[in-house]
Amino acid sequence: MSDRPTAASRRHDPAVRGFASDNYSGIHPEVLAAIATANDGHQVSYGDDDYTEHLQALFQRHFGEQAQAYPVFNGTGANVVALQAVTDRWASVVCSSVAHIHNDECGAPEKVGGLKLYAVPTSDGKLTPELIDREARGFDDEHRAQPQVVSLTQSTEMGTVYSPEQLRSLCDHAHARGMRVHMDGSRISNAAASLGTTLREISTDVGVDILSFGGTKNGLMIGEVVVVLNPNVAKGMLYVRKSAMQLGSKMRFISVQFEALLSGDLWLRNASHSNAMATRLDAAIRDIPGVRVTQPVQANVVFAILPRDVTERLQKRFRFYTWDESTGEVRLMCSFDTTESDVDTFAAAIAEELSGTPG
Amino acid sequence: MSDRPTAASRRHDPAVRGFASDNYSGIHPEVLAAIATANDGHQVSYGDDDYTEHLQALFQRHFGEQAQAYPVFNGTGANVVALQAVTDRWASVVCSSVAHIHNDECGAPEKVGGLKLYAVPTSDGKLTPELIDREARGFDDEHRAQPQVVSLTQSTEMGTVYSPEQLRSLCDHAHARGMRVHMDGSRISNAAASLGTTLREISTDVGVDILSFGGTKNGLMIGEVVVVLNPNVAKGMLYVRKSAMQLGSKMRFISVQFEALLSGDLWLRNASHSNAMATRLDAAIRDIPGVRVTQPVQANVVFAILPRDVTERLQKRFRFYTWDESTGEVRLMCSFDTTESDVDTFAAAIAEELSGTPG
Amino acid sequence: MSDRPTAASRRHDPAVRGFASDNYSGIHPEVLAAIATANDGHQVSYGDDDYTEHLQALFQRHFGEQAQAYPVFNGTGANVVALQAVTDRWASVVCSSVAHIHNDECGAPEKVGGLKLYAVPTSDGKLTPELIDREARGFDDEHRAQPQVVSLTQSTEMGTVYSPEQLRSLCDHAHARGMRVHMDGSRISNAAASLGTTLREISTDVGVDILSFGGTKNGLMIGEVVVVLNPNVAKGMLYVRKSAMQLGSKMRFISVQFEALLSGDLWLRNASHSNAMATRLDAAIRDIPGVRVTQPVQANVVFAILPRDVTERLQKRFRFYTWDESTGEVRLMCSFDTTESDVDTFAAAIAEELSGTPG
Amino acid sequence: MSDRPTAASRRHDPAVRGFASDNYSGIHPEVLAAIATANDGHQVSYGDDDYTEHLQALFQRHFGEQAQAYPVFNGTGANVVALQAVTDRWASVVCSSVAHIHNDECGAPEKVGGLKLYAVPTSDGKLTPELIDREARGFDDEHRAQPQVVSLTQSTEMGTVYSPEQLRSLCDHAHARGMRVHMDGSRISNAAASLGTTLREISTDVGVDILSFGGTKNGLMIGEVVVVLNPNVAKGMLYVRKSAMQLGSKMRFISVQFEALLSGDLWLRNASHSNAMATRLDAAIRDIPGVRVTQPVQANVVFAILPRDVTERLQKRFRFYTWDESTGEVRLMCSFDTTESDVDTFAAAIAEELSGTPG
Repeated sequence: MSDRPTAASRRHDPAVRGFASDNYSGIHPEVLAAIATANDGHQVSYGDDDYTEHLQALFQRHFGEQAQAYPVFNGTGANVVALQAVTDRWASVVCSSVAHIHNDECGAPEKVGGLKLYAVPTSDGKLTPELIDREARGFDDEHRAQPQVVSLTQSTEMGTVYSPEQLRSLCDHAHARGMRVHMDGSRISNAAASLGTTLREISTDVGVDILSFGGTKNGLMIGEVVVVLNPNVAKGMLYVRKSAMQLGSKMRFISVQFEALLSGDLWLRNASHSNAMATRLDAAIRDIPGVRVTQPVQANVVFAILPRDVTERLQKRFRFYTWDESTGEVRLMCSFDTTESDVDTFAAAIAEELSGTPG
Repeated sequence: MSDRPTAASRRHDPAVRGFASDNYSGIHPEVLAAIATANDGHQVSYGDDDYTEHLQALFQRHFGEQAQAYPVFNGTGANVVALQAVTDRWASVVCSSVAHIHNDECGAPEKVGGLKLYAVPTSDGKLTPELIDREARGFDDEHRAQPQVVSLTQSTEMGTVYSPEQLRSLCDHAHARGMRVHMDGSRISNAAASLGTTLREISTDVGVDILSFGGTKNGLMIGEVVVVLNPNVAKGMLYVRKSAMQLGSKMRFISVQFEALLSGDLWLRNASHSNAMATRLDAAIRDIPGVRVTQPVQANVVFAILPRDVTERLQKRFRFYTWDESTGEVRLMCSFDTTESDVDTFAAAIAEELSGTPG
Repeated sequence: MSDRPTAASRRHDPAVRGFASDNYSGIHPEVLAAIATANDGHQVSYGDDDYTEHLQALFQRHFGEQAQAYPVFNGTGANVVALQAVTDRWASVVCSSVAHIHNDECGAPEKVGGLKLYAVPTSDGKLTPELIDREARGFDDEHRAQPQVVSLTQSTEMGTVYSPEQLRSLCDHAHARGMRVHMDGSRISNAAASLGTTLREISTDVGVDILSFGGTKNGLMIGEVVVVLNPNVAKGMLYVRKSAMQLGSKMRFISVQFEALLSGDLWLRNASHSNAMATRLDAAIRDIPGVRVTQPVQANVVFAILPRDVTERLQKRFRFYTWDESTGEVRLMCSFDTTESDVDTFAAAIAEELSGTPG
Repeated sequence: MSDRPTAASRRHDPAVRGFASDNYSGIHPEVLAAIATANDGHQVSYGDDDYTEHLQALFQRHFGEQAQAYPVFNGTGANVVALQAVTDRWASVVCSSVAHIHNDECGAPEKVGGLKLYAVPTSDGKLTPELIDREARGFDDEHRAQPQVVSLTQSTEMGTVYSPEQLRSLCDHAHARGMRVHMDGSRISNAAASLGTTLREISTDVGVDILSFGGTKNGLMIGEVVVVLNPNVAKGMLYVRKSAMQLGSKMRFISVQFEALLSGDLWLRNASHSNAMATRLDAAIRDIPGVRVTQPVQANVVFAILPRDVTERLQKRFRFYTWDESTGEVRLMCSFDTTESDVDTFAAAIAEELSGTPG
């Protein structure tokens, strides 16, 4: 595409990659090509275009005939739109204490949606029926914001993955209490790739009511989709999306990216690859003396405790985040464009730092 | 770009264009090329990338050294973030009754920002000091949401343009009352092109405090920028943008589009062209018996009253919206990709319909 | 009651009364006695007490068997709770431009309830079907906050009164558009007294769905009641009241005040009296040269334009408010404790001032 | 007062008292007399009356010259007004997991104030610097709602009391992090009575910035006061109170109740008495086999675990609440009107039930 003239200049070194986040990566070439495919001429704005219409069939193929797809801009937007659509004004949401909605959205659920969150502590990011019940109480008591939704994340913020059985159990538990289930699926593709299931088998089929389906972290330029899996419980989706400022005008360009992802197997190729890179990294570092991998590596991220001085020196050469200042735990995230060489170089650097012989 | 493989298919006829909205158009080729320029490799997410950093210098060049640029997703988001940043919790906003924030954002200012709007009727979309004072009252009275901002649109929703002198007068008036001035500039480029001024001459230099700078309607795929012109009055921009769900993760791809627009003269070329097409359309239809052009055509849109049956027949062949059902007024919007031939064909069709000899 | 010892002292001259507002008055003696009646011993808090239970029957007597009464603290609270109960998150409310909810609640409908208001100009405070339709539009268009309620005030902020026929017409009109009708009845008793109707004849019987029933301005110490007249359209009342911070703990003392008001005819006596005082004032001043009464006097308030210097001199002796600074219009409000002597003295003072021979 | 005629009837047995809540009690006679003292004649509404003016001096006497008193309706209202006044839009609040604001306000902090709460688990209702730091983190990170306030409750929801030294330590800790301190003092009088301190010694003097001062639970009919202790950090109090629907029109009747409470020693008498009754109850039951008192009894409440069947039988005769269904813990609250006989009768009943010989 560089043969087209533009007043914009390349300002970065495209050879540089790191382990900071899967949203540090760029656009997968097939996705960028898809954007070009949808360009030129006029299309109705705000979602009445041919690409968004086609998207419905595509999501129904993946999630069942009843599924409805509402493209939005980002993960926070997807989560807050989804949660508002399945709650009354007086609702609360039960989630894990490491949930993105609780820690990483600057209070958007509360500030935009007026949602109260009840967060329960988890060590691995996974809720259980028992954990849910710690806060799913006070039903019919007007003094307590009514627990109407369980929000769980698949794969979790800690890189762990719920099994279909675990999901089914959580959904049954929530439904038995009259609650709905929201899945923050910003990395649901990684979970499906990890489990070897279809997307449907870990969402619709286990009883999830509404899903934030992630695109940006799996190779898109921009875009997430709120997928209504159970239309009986979602109300006013169009209005909620618009009033939450998540309605894009030239929506064809968001929708066509998802077409690139979901028409073939790009969603799975990207997710499988980033998972494999995390597994490779885990294998390469878990036996290094001084490294302690803290979570099962089931998706595209490795959590590990490193000596603080080692982390400091490594961060001068590689981008990655400290997750927990108090323990020295770091988060090492792989993405669709992480290479085996990236992993091997990084693992070698860790080994060198810990052996006292930095390269 | 069509030589890259993708699972996405072209689903529309790129030859079809209309007069429905400037957001029916696609991505200007230079902008699409810019996106590709910023691709590949890793860049820090959420705005700490090299492209967004460069954007600061670019906006300072256009709006003065004090300017700060905060890319966001869409116009509604830009407006609500900007308004929140310059108000206290107990604020109200004075705007025109045809303002986008009042009519076209599904209550996002109220629902996301808790902002109360006081809308004053205008015939041409333009506020005056006298109109502002109809609602800018009750200062220091706790029973009235405190008027803290005037929000004006340039060019207006009616296709009219404030002169620099009019803007200066409005800003002085607002400032004298202790109010700030927000400009909804989703089409500010069209206004500057129409007036033959720089962007700065109709914003910073006349006293505007904060600006929603439009990109999408002027050839971008997606993106607007909140430009803080007076940093003394905007607070917590980073937090407000994030909690309003307008913080993009792969921000480089929004920022680089603005680089394509603002590094050279693309912003002006696109705006001048769409303005010229509206002027051409106005000239072609205003003297047709049965057509009444209702607003001065100063930007990229023509408002005209047509007989209802004529409108009905035309809408079978061309896309455009009825603006006012009660009068039969229609809105005919041109965009960067509208061609002279598009205009001439449409004008001829109107003439034919009104002459009773449809083509 | 002064025979009970208390550490509190009388700090005001109880002989002083004015025409500023009906909430400048105190507690009607029968209401104060009622509070004492409910005192002593324990009662379940938050509305599960015997007085609040009895209130249900009382309101059903006045408003029909389907009526449900929810005591709250103040008028703003009653309005916002009522409006939230009959709307979705994406709703807008159509009201008059002089509505209390639009001008006198510091944006509480927007800030607490996220409600968007569309205010239409009226000269006499009364909506008409035509006025409603100016803003009740854009149904099913996600860009417009959906008009779901008409909020009208009876008697209006301008002291005018809707006839039952006018109300029926408005309610039918709203219902035909799928909208609900909220009545701000902070002075509904004055309206019923003026019309010679029951409370039901101007609320339930004409199709009002939900009512803010006023107590404080008609002789109570504190308290309003949200009356659900059409239970089919109000949802989550208990939760909305609590989350809107309008749930009183010792509710028996609010409820028993309404018992004092509504068990016998105190509501009507108080309202008839304050109305009569306004009528007397109107009669006494409307023919004084230099006075122009601007609204029909149908409830307990007189609006009149006086020369500004006259107003200034009068305000040194009598408390009343200027309503419109631009015209010199003043608002003269009577209350349950206004005496004929109060009226006559004030009218004489106006006459004296205008005759150039101040007393 | 029963000699005044009223249409209201006594509907309850004033001899019945229980241990359910201190808001099951009625109005202290001195407070009721004070209401009558302020009655008759006209007083400016909305807080510009002589009683509210006098209240300022009274609160300054108790809390220091800088103190500002803003009467409101209820505790939830006081808390949310106070928290809004000391926070920006993007704030979060750190509180204990048993805080009233977190569990008992139906999400009002989130829904009315847009506040995000970070709740940390405590066993005794008391925060510590270490507990605060679990959530007071992520400063300057736009992804995290910024921790701007610590909210603590004195005496706590568990009936425990912070020492002045503990409070000082918490306030210093919060201030060192740039945070403000809010005290939910719905029972601060009980804490002061327990500690033998003045009110000031456990609020202003230890660094609390803003206080919800409780009235209703200490003998008032209705009313709480937001006390700004540090005027440098509270903004827009008048507007926040009004827009939060907590501004009473006939405010004299709220203010004069606080005059009755605070002019003399009624606040202390009432609080000391209810504390003494809880101490008496604790002493009477803690050694009964089968009873386990679970918290130090430092204020006016006893928490104890009873066998469930005992609780069930007791609740047929006495009103009290089960606090924790999972453990059988009950909450036994005393109030200003609890008598020694009430306590002894109840304790005897517990003993009887547990000895297997119910009375």
